[in-house]
Amino acid sequence: MPSHSTGKTDIEIAQHAVLKPIKDVAKNLQLEEDDLEYYGKYKAKITYDKINALKTKKDGKLFLVTSINPTPAGEGKSTVTIGLGDALKRLGHKTVIALREPSLGPVMGLKGGATGGGYAQVVPMEDINLHFTGDFHALTAANNAISALLDNHIHQGNFLQIDPRRVVWKRAVDLNDRALRHVVVGLGGPGNGVPREDGFDITVASELMAVLCLAEDLNDLKQRIAKIVVAYNYEKKPVTVGDLGVEGAIALLLKDALKPNLVQTIEHTPAIVHGGPFANIAHGCNSVMATKTALKLADYVVTEAGFGADLGAEKFLDIKARTAGLKPDGVVIVATIRALKMHGGVRKEELAVENTAALQAGLLNLQKHVETIVAFGLPFVVAINRFASDTEAEIAVLKNWCSERDIPVSLTEVWEKGSAGGIDLANKLLEAAKQRNNFRPIYPLESTIEEKIETIVRKVYGGTGVEFSTKALRQMEDFKRFGWGHLPVCIAKTQYSLSDDPKKTGRPVDFAIHVRELVPKLGAGFIVALTGDVLTMPGLPIEPAAYQMDVDENGRAIGLF
Amino acid sequence: MPSHSTGKTDIEIAQHAVLKPIKDVAKNLQLEEDDLEYYGKYKAKITYDKINALKTKKDGKLFLVTSINPTPAGEGKSTVTIGLGDALKRLGHKTVIALREPSLGPVMGLKGGATGGGYAQVVPMEDINLHFTGDFHALTAANNAISALLDNHIHQGNFLQIDPRRVVWKRAVDLNDRALRHVVVGLGGPGNGVPREDGFDITVASELMAVLCLAEDLNDLKQRIAKIVVAYNYEKKPVTVGDLGVEGAIALLLKDALKPNLVQTIEHTPAIVHGGPFANIAHGCNSVMATKTALKLADYVVTEAGFGADLGAEKFLDIKARTAGLKPDGVVIVATIRALKMHGGVRKEELAVENTAALQAGLLNLQKHVETIVAFGLPFVVAINRFASDTEAEIAVLKNWCSERDIPVSLTEVWEKGSAGGIDLANKLLEAAKQRNNFRPIYPLESTIEEKIETIVRKVYGGTGVEFSTKALRQMEDFKRFGWGHLPVCIAKTQYSLSDDPKKTGRPVDFAIHVRELVPKLGAGFIVALTGDVLTMPGLPIEPAAYQMDVDENGRAIGLF
Repeated sequence: MPSHSTGKTDIEIAQHAVLKPIKDVAKNLQLEEDDLEYYGKYKAKITYDKINALKTKKDGKLFLVTSINPTPAGEGKSTVTIGLGDALKRLGHKTVIALREPSLGPVMGLKGGATGGGYAQVVPMEDINLHFTGDFHALTAANNAISALLDNHIHQGNFLQIDPRRVVWKRAVDLNDRALRHVVVGLGGPGNGVPREDGFDITVASELMAVLCLAEDLNDLKQRIAKIVVAYNYEKKPVTVGDLGVEGAIALLLKDALKPNLVQTIEHTPAIVHGGPFANIAHGCNSVMATKTALKLADYVVTEAGFGADLGAEKFLDIKARTAGLKPDGVVIVATIRALKMHGGVRKEELAVENTAALQAGLLNLQKHVETIVAFGLPFVVAINRFASDTEAEIAVLKNWCSERDIPVSLTEVWEKGSAGGIDLANKLLEAAKQRNNFRPIYPLESTIEEKIETIVRKVYGGTGVEFSTKALRQMEDFKRFGWGHLPVCIAKTQYSLSDDPKKTGRPVDFAIHVRELVPKLGAGFIVALTGDVLTMPGLPIEPAAYQMDVDENGRAIGLF
Repeated sequence: MPSHSTGKTDIEIAQHAVLKPIKDVAKNLQLEEDDLEYYGKYKAKITYDKINALKTKKDGKLFLVTSINPTPAGEGKSTVTIGLGDALKRLGHKTVIALREPSLGPVMGLKGGATGGGYAQVVPMEDINLHFTGDFHALTAANNAISALLDNHIHQGNFLQIDPRRVVWKRAVDLNDRALRHVVVGLGGPGNGVPREDGFDITVASELMAVLCLAEDLNDLKQRIAKIVVAYNYEKKPVTVGDLGVEGAIALLLKDALKPNLVQTIEHTPAIVHGGPFANIAHGCNSVMATKTALKLADYVVTEAGFGADLGAEKFLDIKARTAGLKPDGVVIVATIRALKMHGGVRKEELAVENTAALQAGLLNLQKHVETIVAFGLPFVVAINRFASDTEAEIAVLKNWCSERDIPVSLTEVWEKGSAGGIDLANKLLEAAKQRNNFRPIYPLESTIEEKIETIVRKVYGGTGVEFSTKALRQMEDFKRFGWGHLPVCIAKTQYSLSDDPKKTGRPVDFAIHVRELVPKLGAGFIVALTGDVLTMPGLPIEPAAYQMDVDENGRAIGLF
């Protein structure tokens, strides 16, 4: 993020950070050596024994960080989350940050890294951005083991009468690989399985990722895995992992991945980084195990949900919080003046030029997300992640806009200053959290799938309604018959717009959302609605970030940023 | 292995073993805490700094364990390797065992586990058999990242003019999944890449696995990766990973996987378990980094090569030893009376019945492998891994057979007794190692590819010659033109027979080997010759081992054995 003014890149700052041994970071949370499984000196998993022992403890307070719709300008939601955690610790509060793990796909594609930025980073950033503690690899292996066992079942006699045309379980890789979206497997003759159409999702979109992130413990994980619908039989009845009889083997492959990972920020604030579904194509929150463990260990927990409040926060509040019985005590909505200007129509190349008119126009996007958080009944603060290019006039416009609407706002400078740049935000959030909290999900579970989707579209996206494809309409009938109508919905939608058209930035009006297909995720416990052209497997750009990546002879990473 | 007599399963013995913290095991090798990166309490990687610092130290002696052709009766080569290491330590020698890591595919397919057996096991067996330190997952991710970047290159303009019909780089999963042997990728229209035929190999057959196992250090790894041929362009010229410009990113993904893993046996003998190419479809040896590090740390290093001496040992001696400048000081050839009886024509169900005639017939298989090790100029001992069902008459036949031929032989009982059951073998091997050692590879590098394959077939397999397919003949011409004729060959062949027909057990005569295709592995530095029907992606059986696998609520594995 060179538009900040320190002159150092994120990886330079991260590589120069002096880390504490993770056992020392853990000690501040009353975690002893036996409560941890080390992965090198600076990473550890927390044992099941310790997590069980914590169950009787009182919970701390939970803060959720969300944002406006992302733009190519960058919003820095992770950066603000980390900086806010550091600031709460600096104020003397026992604090734990709870984040998602980065996916290798975007790291090698566009982003290069996803561990915050500047002086608000979690470390060791190289490890976290690459294989970390192997959780995603375990998920990929487990996902593909289900596929292998399923195809083997069909090949070896197909006792369950699975219709190879109706296999809904896809394979997975933790990479951006468009060539794997639509494939045909089982070619090459009778010795090589039964030919059928298949596809690969990115691992973060796999139902197993959602299952891992929503499971309360290893038994719950196994029960959820058993419920996963992998195919339909020739009578069009669902076939599950439990029917295949392999939920035990799959749970075994995930026995370590389910344990939360402890790392630290550059300022040594404990951070639990665990689970990582994307918020556009999945439910977008870190794991329930991590969040609940963090709440037992700290007085304040700061967590984030992916992309804008229309995606991650909605899913955090309607799916994760409801499933796990969580209630946020306050919300932070992150924006940048640069991104708001883009929402107001400015091109990326012209962001450095002062443009208060565009900022005014772009503020409509922020306004919608504020309305959403209000609709959920939650107290909040708007955090402006300050960039060097922000002008005094622009900052004044923003502040006026907020004060006219009684919206609490804080200028944060955590990228440049670490915790010192987030003290004001922390104080305002602690203040906001004292206000009345009327949290409730946006729709009741008793509504039909159709009603749930419509409610989200109207109340969260600000759209006029929903157009269902013929397929989706038929599926809703089927799902009702299967008894799945009570499940929450997880909408897969572009992150760039409140609508399902990524080009409609700002605050689009008079739009409908197009639901082309539903995907039942019985293990996760929700129904995914695929809208617009959203893809569950990203592609690589013309110049992937991988082209810049390298490693020196001592194993030091180059080109992560 | 219930035919042994303790009445306990391997996993029961392993789960009841009392492990030492790995730092204590390391301390006996003069490895300090800073020389290690811990993965939990009982696994660690050795740092590059330490490996570099060791370079000036003197090497210990190297023992190679190989076997007869495997049968469904089980030979216990890993068990003998581990028991021999334990016995050498018991005799007061500073000993390190150097093994390969198990692949998840066979663990979930047939084997259930691959960490020795009985009282000769490496532990923690659950971890080693599942994800271990993530090396194979890193390889899978790196392998598939090359594919994604290659397909993206083709999709984004194809500057290198890669012919999509001539992509030789395959994707990989560390699973047995026959449905992925032949696939078509890039389907679904212009936004989803360029359609082409593709296939998946099991990760242990990936060239990256061979590269990891043959690399001397991280720089060598990167240079080898750059040389990997991934495709041919429209002019039929090879295109490499270096041409794609991504060797840095791929090496970065493997920066930790290249570090050797330290664990222990049940008797606390240090074991370096690292790398794991299969010996039938790949070169079948653990990593050069691991073997060389072990030689610096110990007076005696015991390592094994996969399957029979026709596969693993041949490749160890002709590829790994030659590339890395290693010279074994002695060889152990493992056999069991049960397996020899199977080579003599007995069915598995009748193995418990005494049958000295079948044993006599089966000894011809052992004899060929003895001749092979003699042809390599190496001193050796035959180790009979004793089973409870072996009768005194059978043992007498075997002993007579050996003494008539002056073949040193030892009855080992390491499965049942641990180190105590291997003392005799250790002493005989130490004695053998004092004999004249005339080690030389079986063929000179200057021979043509054709000559090399013919030499292996005649001298190692005992065949009469080689039949090359039209394709293989054309490829040999091409490879000569590309300047690849000087490389060693790595023959992919069934492990069950000296021939390329798995049904021909014992010692087949008058057979030719059929080479259907050659695969250049420029990064690994050898040419693979695919013979018979051998497949680089195994399938699952009707009742995969996965059906028995489970995990309890505390994370304890069930069904690994």
